[in-house]
Amino acid sequence: MNDQRNGVDPVNDYALLDIDREKRLGFPEVVFGENKTSAQLIGIAERMSAHTSRLLMTRVDAAKAVRVTDCVSGLQYHEDAQMLTGFRAIPQPERGGYIAVVCAGTSDLRVAQEAAVTLEMMGSRVERITDVGVAGIHRLFARLELIRGADVVIAIAGMEGALPSVLGGLVAKPLIAVPTSVGYGTGLNGLIALGAMLNGCAPGVTVVNIDNGFGAAYAAASIHKQIRREN
Amino acid sequence: MNDQRNGVDPVNDYALLDIDREKRLGFPEVVFGENKTSAQLIGIAERMSAHTSRLLMTRVDAAKAVRVTDCVSGLQYHEDAQMLTGFRAIPQPERGGYIAVVCAGTSDLRVAQEAAVTLEMMGSRVERITDVGVAGIHRLFARLELIRGADVVIAIAGMEGALPSVLGGLVAKPLIAVPTSVGYGTGLNGLIALGAMLNGCAPGVTVVNIDNGFGAAYAAASIHKQIRREN
Amino acid sequence: MNDQRNGVDPVNDYALLDIDREKRLGFPEVVFGENKTSAQLIGIAERMSAHTSRLLMTRVDAAKAVRVTDCVSGLQYHEDAQMLTGFRAIPQPERGGYIAVVCAGTSDLRVAQEAAVTLEMMGSRVERITDVGVAGIHRLFARLELIRGADVVIAIAGMEGALPSVLGGLVAKPLIAVPTSVGYGTGLNGLIALGAMLNGCAPGVTVVNIDNGFGAAYAAASIHKQIRREN
Amino acid sequence: MNDQRNGVDPVNDYALLDIDREKRLGFPEVVFGENKTSAQLIGIAERMSAHTSRLLMTRVDAAKAVRVTDCVSGLQYHEDAQMLTGFRAIPQPERGGYIAVVCAGTSDLRVAQEAAVTLEMMGSRVERITDVGVAGIHRLFARLELIRGADVVIAIAGMEGALPSVLGGLVAKPLIAVPTSVGYGTGLNGLIALGAMLNGCAPGVTVVNIDNGFGAAYAAASIHKQIRREN
Amino acid sequence: MNDQRNGVDPVNDYALLDIDREKRLGFPEVVFGENKTSAQLIGIAERMSAHTSRLLMTRVDAAKAVRVTDCVSGLQYHEDAQMLTGFRAIPQPERGGYIAVVCAGTSDLRVAQEAAVTLEMMGSRVERITDVGVAGIHRLFARLELIRGADVVIAIAGMEGALPSVLGGLVAKPLIAVPTSVGYGTGLNGLIALGAMLNGCAPGVTVVNIDNGFGAAYAAASIHKQIRREN
Amino acid sequence: MNDQRNGVDPVNDYALLDIDREKRLGFPEVVFGENKTSAQLIGIAERMSAHTSRLLMTRVDAAKAVRVTDCVSGLQYHEDAQMLTGFRAIPQPERGGYIAVVCAGTSDLRVAQEAAVTLEMMGSRVERITDVGVAGIHRLFARLELIRGADVVIAIAGMEGALPSVLGGLVAKPLIAVPTSVGYGTGLNGLIALGAMLNGCAPGVTVVNIDNGFGAAYAAASIHKQIRREN
Amino acid sequence: MNDQRNGVDPVNDYALLDIDREKRLGFPEVVFGENKTSAQLIGIAERMSAHTSRLLMTRVDAAKAVRVTDCVSGLQYHEDAQMLTGFRAIPQPERGGYIAVVCAGTSDLRVAQEAAVTLEMMGSRVERITDVGVAGIHRLFARLELIRGADVVIAIAGMEGALPSVLGGLVAKPLIAVPTSVGYGTGLNGLIALGAMLNGCAPGVTVVNIDNGFGAAYAAASIHKQIRREN
Amino acid sequence: MNDQRNGVDPVNDYALLDIDREKRLGFPEVVFGENKTSAQLIGIAERMSAHTSRLLMTRVDAAKAVRVTDCVSGLQYHEDAQMLTGFRAIPQPERGGYIAVVCAGTSDLRVAQEAAVTLEMMGSRVERITDVGVAGIHRLFARLELIRGADVVIAIAGMEGALPSVLGGLVAKPLIAVPTSVGYGTGLNGLIALGAMLNGCAPGVTVVNIDNGFGAAYAAASIHKQIRREN
Ligand SMILES: Nc1ncnc2c1ncn2[C@@H]1O[C@H](COP(=O)(O)O)[C@@H](O)[C@H]1O
Ligand SMILES: Nc1ncnc2c1ncn2[C@@H]1O[C@H](COP(=O)(O)O)[C@@H](O)[C@H]1O
Ligand SMILES: Nc1ncnc2c1ncn2[C@@H]1O[C@H](COP(=O)(O)O)[C@@H](O)[C@H]1O
Ligand SMILES: Nc1ncnc2c1ncn2[C@@H]1O[C@H](COP(=O)(O)O)[C@@H](O)[C@H]1O
Ligand SMILES: [Mg+2]
Ligand SMILES: [Mg+2]
Ligand SMILES: [Mg+2]
Ligand SMILES: [Mg+2]
Ligand SMILES: [Mg+2]
Ligand SMILES: [Mg+2]
Ligand SMILES: [Mg+2]
Ligand SMILES: [Mg+2]
Repeated sequence: MNDQRNGVDPVNDYALLDIDREKRLGFPEVVFGENKTSAQLIGIAERMSAHTSRLLMTRVDAAKAVRVTDCVSGLQYHEDAQMLTGFRAIPQPERGGYIAVVCAGTSDLRVAQEAAVTLEMMGSRVERITDVGVAGIHRLFARLELIRGADVVIAIAGMEGALPSVLGGLVAKPLIAVPTSVGYGTGLNGLIALGAMLNGCAPGVTVVNIDNGFGAAYAAASIHKQIRREN
Repeated sequence: MNDQRNGVDPVNDYALLDIDREKRLGFPEVVFGENKTSAQLIGIAERMSAHTSRLLMTRVDAAKAVRVTDCVSGLQYHEDAQMLTGFRAIPQPERGGYIAVVCAGTSDLRVAQEAAVTLEMMGSRVERITDVGVAGIHRLFARLELIRGADVVIAIAGMEGALPSVLGGLVAKPLIAVPTSVGYGTGLNGLIALGAMLNGCAPGVTVVNIDNGFGAAYAAASIHKQIRREN
Repeated sequence: MNDQRNGVDPVNDYALLDIDREKRLGFPEVVFGENKTSAQLIGIAERMSAHTSRLLMTRVDAAKAVRVTDCVSGLQYHEDAQMLTGFRAIPQPERGGYIAVVCAGTSDLRVAQEAAVTLEMMGSRVERITDVGVAGIHRLFARLELIRGADVVIAIAGMEGALPSVLGGLVAKPLIAVPTSVGYGTGLNGLIALGAMLNGCAPGVTVVNIDNGFGAAYAAASIHKQIRREN
Repeated sequence: MNDQRNGVDPVNDYALLDIDREKRLGFPEVVFGENKTSAQLIGIAERMSAHTSRLLMTRVDAAKAVRVTDCVSGLQYHEDAQMLTGFRAIPQPERGGYIAVVCAGTSDLRVAQEAAVTLEMMGSRVERITDVGVAGIHRLFARLELIRGADVVIAIAGMEGALPSVLGGLVAKPLIAVPTSVGYGTGLNGLIALGAMLNGCAPGVTVVNIDNGFGAAYAAASIHKQIRREN
Repeated sequence: MNDQRNGVDPVNDYALLDIDREKRLGFPEVVFGENKTSAQLIGIAERMSAHTSRLLMTRVDAAKAVRVTDCVSGLQYHEDAQMLTGFRAIPQPERGGYIAVVCAGTSDLRVAQEAAVTLEMMGSRVERITDVGVAGIHRLFARLELIRGADVVIAIAGMEGALPSVLGGLVAKPLIAVPTSVGYGTGLNGLIALGAMLNGCAPGVTVVNIDNGFGAAYAAASIHKQIRREN
Repeated sequence: MNDQRNGVDPVNDYALLDIDREKRLGFPEVVFGENKTSAQLIGIAERMSAHTSRLLMTRVDAAKAVRVTDCVSGLQYHEDAQMLTGFRAIPQPERGGYIAVVCAGTSDLRVAQEAAVTLEMMGSRVERITDVGVAGIHRLFARLELIRGADVVIAIAGMEGALPSVLGGLVAKPLIAVPTSVGYGTGLNGLIALGAMLNGCAPGVTVVNIDNGFGAAYAAASIHKQIRREN
Repeated sequence: MNDQRNGVDPVNDYALLDIDREKRLGFPEVVFGENKTSAQLIGIAERMSAHTSRLLMTRVDAAKAVRVTDCVSGLQYHEDAQMLTGFRAIPQPERGGYIAVVCAGTSDLRVAQEAAVTLEMMGSRVERITDVGVAGIHRLFARLELIRGADVVIAIAGMEGALPSVLGGLVAKPLIAVPTSVGYGTGLNGLIALGAMLNGCAPGVTVVNIDNGFGAAYAAASIHKQIRREN
Repeated sequence: MNDQRNGVDPVNDYALLDIDREKRLGFPEVVFGENKTSAQLIGIAERMSAHTSRLLMTRVDAAKAVRVTDCVSGLQYHEDAQMLTGFRAIPQPERGGYIAVVCAGTSDLRVAQEAAVTLEMMGSRVERITDVGVAGIHRLFARLELIRGADVVIAIAGMEGALPSVLGGLVAKPLIAVPTSVGYGTGLNGLIALGAMLNGCAPGVTVVNIDNGFGAAYAAASIHKQIRREN
């Protein structure tokens, strides 16, 4: 059909799948689940199964997930990450090296899990380092060798968002920072952590949206692919 | 009565209908449903039926809609648009040409439907183009001829709000942009999309309030009427 | 040359002219002067003279204007609008009808002039209505017939930005609002006027960036062209 | 007891009543109900009954009101105003003249009622004028004589907040503006209406907090008392 | 001429005087000088001399003032208030009683002077109380009797803006608060002082724009006129 | 084990306890309960009992508290402070003198209790002074001697946040201010109170995050320890 | 005279000195120089010399300082701190121990000097530690013993403001943080650094206004006095 | 000396060089020039020449640059980038491949040059692509092959900041976005462009501070080093 030759595939009247994306960017369209109904998620998942073997849906709450997995086979729900994956099990790592997913506190774990699941779906191995925020900085030093060994580092923090700035002065690897909405009052739902990360003195830290573990992981995987392409 | 000669009509102690508006502006008062009780909506709908054949109520949730349609006859509820219309079926288009209602993602559909229903109530024909956001820009090119054929274009987007800016550089027609509250974190409930639309480099894009599909449609219809008045 | 076939023309290493724009959108690229050096403005103006007979440069201060008009012939400086036009005199109106450029106070005049010069360059006739803000609303009524006669209305106001809201309830024509940075303190350099315009109760008002007389005029002219295309 | 001689009276460990206030300011302490438990409201109401015959509690929701009126006798709940009054019926007006409580839309009624109940408790007569916003400005003219006859005017509006600015240019009386949180998107829960009121061109409008009908009424009554003290 | 019968008088193409305002509101149009050129101020002043004997121009800096007073006779410049008055000397008080203009610090004096000059032009007597901010609250008590004797109190403060809140608990008179832009850092050019004043616990304080001594004085005078109309 | 020699102790995969903190800073890690699941709080509490005799968990709601106290013995829930303490009863004061915890209104009590419980856990004696806000400033004077007798003063206020500024001018002791989220509209959930406290004219007031009674108490206790170390 | 018995002393019509402050709070009134004219600073300095031997004026630029020191004898200008002190040389430390004034970067030095001069005027000894920001955290460890030896620590930082958070986890002393306006873009003139400091995970850090070295020092000195009162 | 063994080197009392950074992170400390005096820049440059052969100073205006290059030999000033480099000529590229520095408009060139100079100092080859913003999107397609050939892409844009979002959907390489402060009004000095970039629908775009060409280049170079380490 004409549409498909143009790289698009409409799903009823509510979606126009970008079926060219996997070829163009190396990974199929990822579905943003937050503002979609279960019916829309189901329709999209079903149609995507015709075009790709890898499916990623982010920000899907447990209630929606039940309805979707009931209708579409081959999906797996990761509650701690609020994600659906399919249509196969999470694949084995495709390349050497690993990505360190470092988070400042227990409360940042949902975002860390979103990053980890994304990385694994994209073929990268993950090392998780949790609860090493700057208030007890020796905890970070206790894990520093593991972090330094990574090809790319993702640093996740809420509240004052200082972790990436400190890490950026200690580690000579590409470093992506994720602010989280953890905190209260003047934390402004993550805006202060974001601001701190953007204004860090340590050079070369780059930043993604608040709570956007997916985006950081996607960027990290795309760097990882370049680094390990010859290996 | 004196009030009616002055173009107003009080409904109990809570409303003062502008019964002169249809004559003055070409369309009767549209009711903002969000902060009104069902009782107030009912009272207003009943009184308006004495003055006009067209009724439009915006931002009415399903629970209120049930109570209002139970009491007032001749109303129709559009759940996807969160609107009530009356007192007749949606009319046939009154003029040639059409308005393109283009939206960036599936999540913007409620706003797109609010625009489409408003346009149809005001006598314009609508073409809906959905899910053509800039992350897969060939989707937009796949629909460009349909958009270029419109008399006026409404472009709806959340998140980074880039769609109107790109469209504005491709289409030589009046273009009205609607930011939506779709997104999270630094999206600030649509303020970033709004800001992007106001600061777009493509000249001549105008903008309405966040999620205000109604306002964009009203403006588009009023342009459409001027364009097609001689046809 | 290859580039020109692709619709672009590089000017040294600092600009890549969009020489296809006039054909695509009906008006050549308009140059945003604020952040460009005189040397860049000169280089761009010279190259554009090879592609078009109409040149518009916005937000050019008097000092830069002297340097540019000294080097490039056929340019005219409009100090009250802070604009350069070329390469011919401002053309005669190309179509019937007129655009009303209405402003609330004396202080909004620079923005009103930016709108008026843009409209005239784009072939529309302009009626200027000045200093009719809502603090003395009879001033608006004293000019209402002239405003109602326009094909499109541009309403410009700073401070509380109420003028478009009031006008929108009185005039059945397409209405574009321009907030200005006039005011002080909580006026927040025009953000409050912008916000008031976006939240106006009168339906169908659309809005452009603060102080963006150019953008409003471009939109108005593009509507005007559609309205008067058969005339 | 010592405390009472100092003009204070502790209620358990959670309040220190200002029992000198009626003498000092002409009206007893008014209780802010929003963040208090029912138990605290009951304790405070009971203790205040020993010191004054007039009680006013603001921002009390219906659930709390039931619990409080069950325990404390002589209280009356005004649901539309979300207020409790006691310990007598609302008194007869103590002075000549009246206060006009003008509101722009149906949605502003809770705030208008808060103002009206406060005024009546403080001894002023009230005239209510509802739904006269600027989108249909003839509605305002239809009520202008009643407004002009008032000793003080309270103007209440959400969205673009233009009503006080327009009224301020038409009425030569003290005018107090109340922004409301009615609206959505860029309305920012009333901040735009507030900003518009503070930046109005009409001179001499003063403003209170968003949704603060009580505060506006208190100020109006205190002006009213001065105006009518000799009558 | 027609315009004059409609209560307006155009000055060249840049102003449309509201010559009906003195009759309607009791005081002629006050000119906002900040964004006007000297030439515009001169043109407006000259034309206004035909309609009124009282002229007030606010926010006029010294350089402009020299040019205006050179051209228009009968004007007086008040540098500490940044105001021009005319066409006669400041008049004798027209009524009994006085307005207290109270300011928190030395730095708030420009705003206090703007209020005082406005009050005097409008016929009210002024008592100035300076530098009684809450950091040394006994200074306020040292002046409390003078403040309590006023018909209306204007309280001016920058930084934390606490003065009106404290005064509002001590004085039973109408009280208008003016935030100033004095301070630095998180003072946000007066926004914090404004916010503090709008959220004060003392009931009945009303507020005007940041640094708007003129607006507070206009409101105070309009209250004063009502209070003393029979005296 | 290696980790413990490095001063850390992992709890499953979600926490890395800073078991060196009590030695380093004089008080063990305090657990931020708001974003943790009951299961995580239980796991952390159990592991901490191996390292310390004092446990403090903040911002724990009643539902979570039930689940945690059911599983972990030796814990006490303070509902008014939303805190869990353990593993012993709150200790006797360890040093002379006391801390004054002063709050402006009844609505600030949760924050005041959070401060008081923290202080008692850290070995300081507390005097609570409640509801002495500036709207009835004699209430503050009625308690001034008790406040002046403290070694450190904590001043808690929402709305306009003026209390610390006034206290700072009256009391020559270290003074820590806590803004609360009490208020509405322009109070911006405590941002205005915070801003007022940071901009106070009274010298030497320091400030903590909105609603952060814990942080203020921790700082006060750490000052208190220094002051009373020789006594 | 009456005023002086009330603890106030007027200086012309622009200041009302709080001459009771030294007795009440232990240090005379400190003059905020930023918004005062030279003439006002001179008048105030002269009058203060009658009441106290210690004078501190903050935020005085070099131009004003020349005019003031020309007229008033016994003053010393500290250009790096933008402060005037008098009427004697900076005194010898009055007590044991010292305050550490730690700053993150070279750019924070003006604020650090403002703190140091204030501390010395108030009788405390100062140790300056400069340029130890977290991008090279070993620099902080290289100075940690000196910092740990202080009675109170002042930590000053702009940009991401992470220094106090890291220090707070390493040092068991009272710690006051000062955000500076150093940085650009999203640094928002210090608001991000402030926010990071208020949201730091390390417990017990308190904060003052942006660039307010004076306020931090005043608080530190008042703690220092309590700690060393018996020494 | 002890300090040097600890990896620090003090410069007078205003800097503490991180002389260990080149070993730790692969590039020496980069000096932030904006808030430093010429004297400080000179002192730092001189001392750094003892430790490294590569010097980078950012945000140095022309006036300061003259004074610094007069005193310190071996420095070169890049006015278009506002940078100083030394102590050798910019080195030859150390590795294969190149970084694409793409900017949306002529006005973004200062930031693009800051990125390019940094990249060259760090050993990467640069391809500059200028003025390909989305208003004429064919300009981007005209340069797409060059961009796709890069190892890493830096995308720079002001105003609506849409370029990275569009590029991210077209290019499968690591992509770093830089918002610029170009624009006016609601552009908020780059905050809207930043927000748009953080909320882009194209996955995997990471972002740095407004106008921070240096930071983006540092991150790109650190990725580039990893990618080409085996080549
Ligand atoms: N005053 C203005 N306000 C908003 N956009 C403008 C203005 N002047 C020119 N533009 C647009 O900005 C785009 C980018 O301008 P330039 O930086 O010259 O490449 C042009 O294509 C115009 O459409
Ligand atoms: N300083 C001021 N602050 C606020 N409003 C003012 C001020 N000065 C004059 N105005 C008002 O601003 C309105 C508009 O002024 P203009 O721009 O002169 O037409 C006048 O009608 C005055 O009521
Ligand atoms: N740099 C400063 N930052 C904050 N507050 C200050 C500063 N300098 C002086 N102050 C305080 O500001 C108050 C008011 O100052 P003044 O305007 O001189 O009456 C004084 O009582 C000081 O406590
Ligand atoms: N233009 C820049 N933007 C952001 N960070 C920078 C810039 N220039 C230098 N830096 C970083 O700022 C840190 C602190 O700089 P300094 O104030 O020189 O000690 C350095 O270590 C650099 O990594
Ligand atoms: Mg933890
Ligand atoms: Mg989609
Ligand atoms: Mg005017
Ligand atoms: Mg209505
Ligand atoms: Mg003072
Ligand atoms: Mg109370
Ligand atoms: Mg440094
Ligand atoms: Mg360009």
